[in-house]
Amino acid sequence: MSRLSQKHLLGIKDITRQDIELIFETADNFKDVINRPIKKVPSLRDVTVANVFFENSTRTRLSFELAQKRLSADVINFSASNSSVKKGETLLDTVNNILAMKVDMIVMRHASPGAPHYLSRHIKANIVNAGDGTHEHPTQALLDTFSIREKLGGVEGKKIAIIGDILHSRVALSNIFALQKLGAKVMVCGPPTLLPKYIAQLGVQVELDVMKALQWCDVANVLRIQLERQQIKYFPSLREYSLYYGITKKILDSLKKQIVIMHPGPINRGVELSSDAADSHHSIILDQVENGVAVRMAVMYLLAGQI
Amino acid sequence: MSRLSQKHLLGIKDITRQDIELIFETADNFKDVINRPIKKVPSLRDVTVANVFFENSTRTRLSFELAQKRLSADVINFSASNSSVKKGETLLDTVNNILAMKVDMIVMRHASPGAPHYLSRHIKANIVNAGDGTHEHPTQALLDTFSIREKLGGVEGKKIAIIGDILHSRVALSNIFALQKLGAKVMVCGPPTLLPKYIAQLGVQVELDVMKALQWCDVANVLRIQLERQQIKYFPSLREYSLYYGITKKILDSLKKQIVIMHPGPINRGVELSSDAADSHHSIILDQVENGVAVRMAVMYLLAGQI
Amino acid sequence: MSRLSQKHLLGIKDITRQDIELIFETADNFKDVINRPIKKVPSLRDVTVANVFFENSTRTRLSFELAQKRLSADVINFSASNSSVKKGETLLDTVNNILAMKVDMIVMRHASPGAPHYLSRHIKANIVNAGDGTHEHPTQALLDTFSIREKLGGVEGKKIAIIGDILHSRVALSNIFALQKLGAKVMVCGPPTLLPKYIAQLGVQVELDVMKALQWCDVANVLRIQLERQQIKYFPSLREYSLYYGITKKILDSLKKQIVIMHPGPINRGVELSSDAADSHHSIILDQVENGVAVRMAVMYLLAGQI
Repeated sequence: MSRLSQKHLLGIKDITRQDIELIFETADNFKDVINRPIKKVPSLRDVTVANVFFENSTRTRLSFELAQKRLSADVINFSASNSSVKKGETLLDTVNNILAMKVDMIVMRHASPGAPHYLSRHIKANIVNAGDGTHEHPTQALLDTFSIREKLGGVEGKKIAIIGDILHSRVALSNIFALQKLGAKVMVCGPPTLLPKYIAQLGVQVELDVMKALQWCDVANVLRIQLERQQIKYFPSLREYSLYYGITKKILDSLKKQIVIMHPGPINRGVELSSDAADSHHSIILDQVENGVAVRMAVMYLLAGQI
Repeated sequence: MSRLSQKHLLGIKDITRQDIELIFETADNFKDVINRPIKKVPSLRDVTVANVFFENSTRTRLSFELAQKRLSADVINFSASNSSVKKGETLLDTVNNILAMKVDMIVMRHASPGAPHYLSRHIKANIVNAGDGTHEHPTQALLDTFSIREKLGGVEGKKIAIIGDILHSRVALSNIFALQKLGAKVMVCGPPTLLPKYIAQLGVQVELDVMKALQWCDVANVLRIQLERQQIKYFPSLREYSLYYGITKKILDSLKKQIVIMHPGPINRGVELSSDAADSHHSIILDQVENGVAVRMAVMYLLAGQI
Repeated sequence: MSRLSQKHLLGIKDITRQDIELIFETADNFKDVINRPIKKVPSLRDVTVANVFFENSTRTRLSFELAQKRLSADVINFSASNSSVKKGETLLDTVNNILAMKVDMIVMRHASPGAPHYLSRHIKANIVNAGDGTHEHPTQALLDTFSIREKLGGVEGKKIAIIGDILHSRVALSNIFALQKLGAKVMVCGPPTLLPKYIAQLGVQVELDVMKALQWCDVANVLRIQLERQQIKYFPSLREYSLYYGITKKILDSLKKQIVIMHPGPINRGVELSSDAADSHHSIILDQVENGVAVRMAVMYLLAGQI
């Protein structure tokens, strides 16, 4: 069996192109599994996985939990909202307590960038980062890139525009890393207030005009406007955003070309994406969700061999 | 194997008497199963069921979850309180996301009447309505009617009084449909402010005097006073309600006849039902709870064959 | 097979030394199980356990849930925060409803002292008290005492100081009972405002000076300062508490002897215990957590045979 270069999946930045390709090949197999009548494999029988979510995230947690069940893992769920964290316990104490109960793998979402990296230096179990603040969300980037590969037959040389709120998005950063490692050309597009200052250093094209971005790209990955994260004063209002950056079916049709529309969900219909665009034949949004389970199965399967 | 006429259970209104009888015969078998030392059957192995509760309902959810486990289904729980629904996602997007993860059946509670019917026109998975606003709660009606059949040997021709807050109750409407389809005589009884205006059109007797209702009926299904739902001004106070409509053991004894007392729970002891009445030999309240698991097993078992 | 003298575990007060020893011998076996690659045994297959938590307690619930999964039990979780309890249902009605769904064992946490004892007089299922107010927390005492036995080779004749907030602690009372039944010498130590008035009647030594307690004991079980429970006016502030009762590595080293440090968690690092003391070679805090799963497996395994 081939192996990952890491025993954790902390971020796309830390893994190699070979790692990504191994995950994709493994996910191909698991996608077959979850489309069979018998959707389960015994691969992680006798592996106990704890989903430790210090921030709520229903859809990511559900996807991981289903992936764990398809792999026959034992699953325990820990959410910080009713937990010892509130009683002033440190992150390391919380996690060490869970591990002392003989848990083999931690899937963790945390509001602080770097939290899983910090943990990985102190514990023995495998860690999968399920989102650390606005930093990385590696399994999302893997499932996005896997979906592009599936739709277009490959990622190398393809032009991907990531459109929207780049600043508050952990999805953007992880996607940039994954796409670049696989040889894609990456552009980010959004209002200047939603582009981080370090963006130029990442080797991506920056475009303020969404029409130009759409004309350029093979794939538009349209990010959610994360109202709950915004603290910026001069941010365009939702109405302004929708007016200048919202993507409609009419716009897509006017391009007179093949274009793939992606979105990590949940969609604000009528803001970043109109309903007719989200539901059009361009959209592979529900494929992304389905691929998420297969990709997460692959990640956990490959890590579990390397404790 | 006999089959249901529907691939969903949206409401009792939509199913036939034959459907109900098939569910009851199947539930008879499952009631045997859950009373054996080995309470499980492999019938839904490889079926994934999502319990999608947009409103809290511990007892209904527990009953469904136990029924799913007895059937060996894979179960995922989604509650809207910490979910993407809060982030402005549409109902259809939320459910399509869950389905894209290869979920076969949705058990759904939603505050809006008609929500599961709307969904059923757009998705392929089986849907079981676990309560949609004040509209229907079909599995509750099935377990109530199953319990009457079990206690009295049949439903045809029996006189059932549904007593209490008819207006805010989804239990009342579903029970009326189920009882009428099985040939029972149905009366509703409660203060005028708690009777819906359309009640006369349903072909039931209406009675304001609870003593007359009790004298008439074989079975009194006493509904909970749902304080949390009431927005009516001139509603009787709890004290008034209890004084004029509360049922005590003393009242039941004064009837000098067999009478069966039912309640969908949770009981407000001392309001709609006194403690000595709830715990008397007339009461089959805990049988209803037990039958709930068997009836829900039957519903999910029968639907799962018809995807 | 040997048997417990009780069909419930309500408190340490109610069980015998022989019961405790039987639990420990059984836990020895289960500790081997959870340290094997295959951590599961089929012992509780076809036993359904409900974890009924009227108060939040992530770490105790997780420990019980893992123990149940290692034993192959079917598990349902009921937490009072989103439940019928809020709708005014009585404790007995809530539990009887759960039991009517054919649940065999109830693991219960409740804010009221005596709640599980009350229930045990009315229901047939096995009950495990997972903490009743400031009264008892028997499985915590068992895992603490099991950890002392493991570390020191036995409990008989050993000197144990329980240090901190004795008044608000259910851990203290259960530990005193367990240690005394096994022949240990017990001292409690804390500020006078945190010692209950009845303490002298329990046959333990009382010491106000933490240095004297540490010099006397073989094991210091350092309790958490439960800020969330305190309603006393003249309680020392956190800073005062830490100054006069906080235990540091420097203090431990100054004792120039072997001493074992325990803590039921979650730790307030820098209050009752400094970080270097909590992480020192004296500490067996994470062993306690690991032993918690084995001890709870033993308790549920032994009770399940006696329904």
